[in-house]
Amino acid sequence: MARPSDHVDGARLWRRLMDLSRFGARPDGGVDRQTLTEAEIAARAHLVALGRSLGLAPFTDAAANLFLRLPGRQPDRPPVMAGSHIDSQPTGGRFDGAYGVLAALEAVEAIRTAGLVPSRPIEVVAFTNEEGCRFAPGMTGSDLFTGVRTLAEVAGIRDAAGIAQGEALSAVLACDRDVPQRPLLRPVAAFVEPHIEQGPFLERDRIPIGVVTGIQGTRRYRVRVTGEAAHAGTAERHERRDALMAAVRMIAAIDRTASDPADTKLTVGMLQVTPNAPSVVPAAVEFSIDLRHPDNAVVDRIDAEIRAIVEAERGPCAAALRQIQHNPSLAFSPAVRGAIAAAAGRLGLPHRDILSAAGHDARQLHYACPTGMIFVPCRDGVSHNPAEWAEPGDLTAGARVLADVLWHLAESDAI
Amino acid sequence: MARPSDHVDGARLWRRLMDLSRFGARPDGGVDRQTLTEAEIAARAHLVALGRSLGLAPFTDAAANLFLRLPGRQPDRPPVMAGSHIDSQPTGGRFDGAYGVLAALEAVEAIRTAGLVPSRPIEVVAFTNEEGCRFAPGMTGSDLFTGVRTLAEVAGIRDAAGIAQGEALSAVLACDRDVPQRPLLRPVAAFVEPHIEQGPFLERDRIPIGVVTGIQGTRRYRVRVTGEAAHAGTAERHERRDALMAAVRMIAAIDRTASDPADTKLTVGMLQVTPNAPSVVPAAVEFSIDLRHPDNAVVDRIDAEIRAIVEAERGPCAAALRQIQHNPSLAFSPAVRGAIAAAAGRLGLPHRDILSAAGHDARQLHYACPTGMIFVPCRDGVSHNPAEWAEPGDLTAGARVLADVLWHLAESDAI
Repeated sequence: MARPSDHVDGARLWRRLMDLSRFGARPDGGVDRQTLTEAEIAARAHLVALGRSLGLAPFTDAAANLFLRLPGRQPDRPPVMAGSHIDSQPTGGRFDGAYGVLAALEAVEAIRTAGLVPSRPIEVVAFTNEEGCRFAPGMTGSDLFTGVRTLAEVAGIRDAAGIAQGEALSAVLACDRDVPQRPLLRPVAAFVEPHIEQGPFLERDRIPIGVVTGIQGTRRYRVRVTGEAAHAGTAERHERRDALMAAVRMIAAIDRTASDPADTKLTVGMLQVTPNAPSVVPAAVEFSIDLRHPDNAVVDRIDAEIRAIVEAERGPCAAALRQIQHNPSLAFSPAVRGAIAAAAGRLGLPHRDILSAAGHDARQLHYACPTGMIFVPCRDGVSHNPAEWAEPGDLTAGARVLADVLWHLAESDAI
Repeated sequence: MARPSDHVDGARLWRRLMDLSRFGARPDGGVDRQTLTEAEIAARAHLVALGRSLGLAPFTDAAANLFLRLPGRQPDRPPVMAGSHIDSQPTGGRFDGAYGVLAALEAVEAIRTAGLVPSRPIEVVAFTNEEGCRFAPGMTGSDLFTGVRTLAEVAGIRDAAGIAQGEALSAVLACDRDVPQRPLLRPVAAFVEPHIEQGPFLERDRIPIGVVTGIQGTRRYRVRVTGEAAHAGTAERHERRDALMAAVRMIAAIDRTASDPADTKLTVGMLQVTPNAPSVVPAAVEFSIDLRHPDNAVVDRIDAEIRAIVEAERGPCAAALRQIQHNPSLAFSPAVRGAIAAAAGRLGLPHRDILSAAGHDARQLHYACPTGMIFVPCRDGVSHNPAEWAEPGDLTAGARVLADVLWHLAESDAI
């Protein structure tokens, strides 16, 4: 019997990636397709049309997740699902997220082209707001789909322009009048997310397939420092309650404490000054902290140090630290990892186990069904950057492995 | 003969200050009336109508400075001028700038009410964009009026929304169709600017009148740090070119170096992160530095240290420092200082010499004509803050001194 992977068409997959990258294209070759924006709405419509043209049934849900469904011989069984997200960072690339969705579409098309009809339905999915840059925190779609958060919890989160996530979701769903809605919290048989590695290891070792073992732990915070506005030319140093100077002392100390161990990832990506005027001593500063390490004990130790630093360095200002996310390290399903390694082995593709340093929608699905991820190399490990790049051959390899894994999972009664 | 100061009406002055504070009023009692905005345009129209009702002739110029002219017996002589500005910081108060304009109006009204007609014309002035928060640097109106900068130099400066200062000036002048325009660079006989102290000394010593001896030196900079965007979860510490961490190291070191001598004023009021997303290592940071000290040698020494720190702390990022303003310390005209001290003495008002820690439009006028400033106390020295407050009695005292000084200068042949 022909394997689905034999029918994966790498040139077609590449063309579709480039087509999708036109939605929200940046002049520097990158993508700015933030969640629930016009650019993403247009990209959704493009995917719906593409799915229909391939005989897949589109539907959505209250989180504006987008599904394209290949029917199964036993249509009432929970589906096998594969995909990722199509939203991007403001300075994003063409592969983060988009590859997972289009590789899943390619895999499903390969199964159809092979003349195969799976037992379980197979669904391609694009989850809403994975990135969390417009509405923070991210993973809104997979959180709502798996019940980690509720609509009531996310609806009130506002973007920088003051628009609530709930309003943005309603606006997008209003554009999807001809796409039926299904409930959140549907049972899923298994989930596989293909993704570029966003790290340097696969490229360095020339290995096309990473079998992802799990995801490193993350904590995310917001720190608000409140001082007092004053005149830059007259307020004496000893009288000032300068919120930016307090924030700078905190960030410098937090960066130093997170330099050990050396593989700790500590990022202050967002910092907002009020009133942000050159002649006014800053009255308030809000900044983000993103802390990740594979070892939960390291994350917990630095968490305690961050809390102590915020208190120690606030000087005459007030400071409030709010933890907005805490995801411990997790290990993916051995069954799914095994299926990925076996498929790569049968195709003669070099593969190795690898830990995901970044969070993905697969984290949420992991708590709902057997879940795994396939990583492919990306150039210099660069991501969240317009220069993001992956080799067409590696992207094809990932889609071939996925096609065989999806077929296996859709037929298997063991999961 | 009655003195003009006998006709100053403190209650009227206070009422006009409160009336003007309604334009751009903030819910917290402060004022947000940034330059060339709708709020300031409405406040201008209010002043034009008020001036006309008092028999003063309004006119403007290409910098959108607003003048209200009391005719003199010798109308062709250069005028004596008094005033300040009506634009505010986004978190501004009701007195900074507005007091100078309305005290000048009160003084001119007192001269008229006294039945006096001065030899020289007297003009009340409100200079454009003193604050420099919307279009940086500030002092646009007095710079253009005295030829320190040209329209060509300031027209292209853009606000955060991308609007050019030249466009904003044209829009405001279009609203002033019935207000005649006069040329920039007109000769002026003398200039006096009344202002709240924005410092603690007069209030602490219970002295209502400060005879300002000069203005402390200022340097203003913009620093741009350029790194590279990267994924917060995957980019290793040693690979990162984190623009915010470099900026934080610079600001912390600059703050330390500026702590000696203790009366140095060092402010980073503006800091902008790109792309400013919690999961992205910052690609670029731009921040402002505002450095002031009465001793030019101190300013010059810290200037050299700042330049060295920016280079030393940039790490793997690129950094560019641009000085956008350099005003050395200056000493005001002895003739004007003497006239202010003499008027206060005749009125029995306690007065003392005081240095201005902040820049004012008087700096620019100083290089064009004999110039001085009258300071009045403000509560706790607080300014650039909605809580800004001055006692009505002190404001009246300042206007009384100004009325007699303007009359003296308008009659004197010695200046």
